[in-house]
Amino acid sequence: MQGNGKFITFEGGEGTGKSTQIKLLADFLAKKGVQTVLTKEPGGTEVGQELRQILVTGDPDKMDAVAEALLYYADRRIHMTKKVWPALNNGQWVLSDRFADSTVAYQYYGYNKKIDKDILQDLYNLAVGDFKPDLTILLDIDPKIGLSRSLKKAQGMQVKELRHEGRALEFHENLRKGFLEIAAKEPERFVIFDANKDIETLHKEIVEYVSNRFGLK
Amino acid sequence: MQGNGKFITFEGGEGTGKSTQIKLLADFLAKKGVQTVLTKEPGGTEVGQELRQILVTGDPDKMDAVAEALLYYADRRIHMTKKVWPALNNGQWVLSDRFADSTVAYQYYGYNKKIDKDILQDLYNLAVGDFKPDLTILLDIDPKIGLSRSLKKAQGMQVKELRHEGRALEFHENLRKGFLEIAAKEPERFVIFDANKDIETLHKEIVEYVSNRFGLK
Repeated sequence: MQGNGKFITFEGGEGTGKSTQIKLLADFLAKKGVQTVLTKEPGGTEVGQELRQILVTGDPDKMDAVAEALLYYADRRIHMTKKVWPALNNGQWVLSDRFADSTVAYQYYGYNKKIDKDILQDLYNLAVGDFKPDLTILLDIDPKIGLSRSLKKAQGMQVKELRHEGRALEFHENLRKGFLEIAAKEPERFVIFDANKDIETLHKEIVEYVSNRFGLK
Repeated sequence: MQGNGKFITFEGGEGTGKSTQIKLLADFLAKKGVQTVLTKEPGGTEVGQELRQILVTGDPDKMDAVAEALLYYADRRIHMTKKVWPALNNGQWVLSDRFADSTVAYQYYGYNKKIDKDILQDLYNLAVGDFKPDLTILLDIDPKIGLSRSLKKAQGMQVKELRHEGRALEFHENLRKGFLEIAAKEPERFVIFDANKDIETLHKEIVEYVSNRFGLK
């Protein structure tokens, strides 16, 4: 399915600065003559935007982990078929704010492993097949710091996307451990950065890594 | 998961009169002192209503069969956990306008078997487990007649739920064959009625069957 483009995903808990770092990386890549598509999950497509509103707003208990996993994968399937794969086949680089690792982290680790992990792998195979990101950048931070950043950001939002922020701190601590465990299993695909650094320092570290990894001069 | 209630699902293509027959059956059951819950898929819950709008309105090609199957199963999981199982455990009878057979009929047979059927079984196991309806009433009609009824009904709707009606007649003919094949595989669970009969005649046939089946006097 993949053409010459690169698929780079950003992962991490709430308030790790993923969207900021994606924009800065896209600016850098543009200067290098690389065409980029900035996108996100959930909500990278028009239908996905409607699903995003269902998933990230309202009562944390309005659906269980199984229903969430199914919805995130519906969003993902539409995202891949309508946006990500076409862009990659066009030679563009796609930078995505979250991808499948978030589903494992939130719906498996976040809910303290109440859902069968194999199910999430089955859903991945169904919706994405054997396709994988070329690189996954994990931004790691103490959830206490991340949540306070995220709540501050939400004050300026018209529709407050705080469904996940509404969960207990334990959920977010499970989440962080989850992301680190997922990353440890695929060291080739993952690189981990300390998201507690200031924006510019973190950006420079990411640029250096991406440049080396993909041979950009 | 199931208490003393009965779970009766109504299946069939567009314009077979499912919602009319469900209401009439509920009225009959009420007279017999049976408490009923009338519901539907997609859209049997508040979240489900939002999913329904995504699924049954707009461009038929806005998502593929895999994405649709995932969305229908997300709706179904929320429906089962938040409404159907609690009602059955309460001793109520649940009458549902569509259930899982519709997903097999639409996403597998309708799309001419382009999706792997095992996947739909896996999704069923994930979302519903080994639970099954006590009875499934299939209303069968020539799709040409059904579609013309359905389009007529839509003229009075504020939001026109015509995404599936927008598909080619071939889709609806596959659908009908699909429903009949599904029913043939589970004769214990299914009963088939000719939906071309007038409303009252059909209602009497359904009442007679249901009364005998569940021993209502």
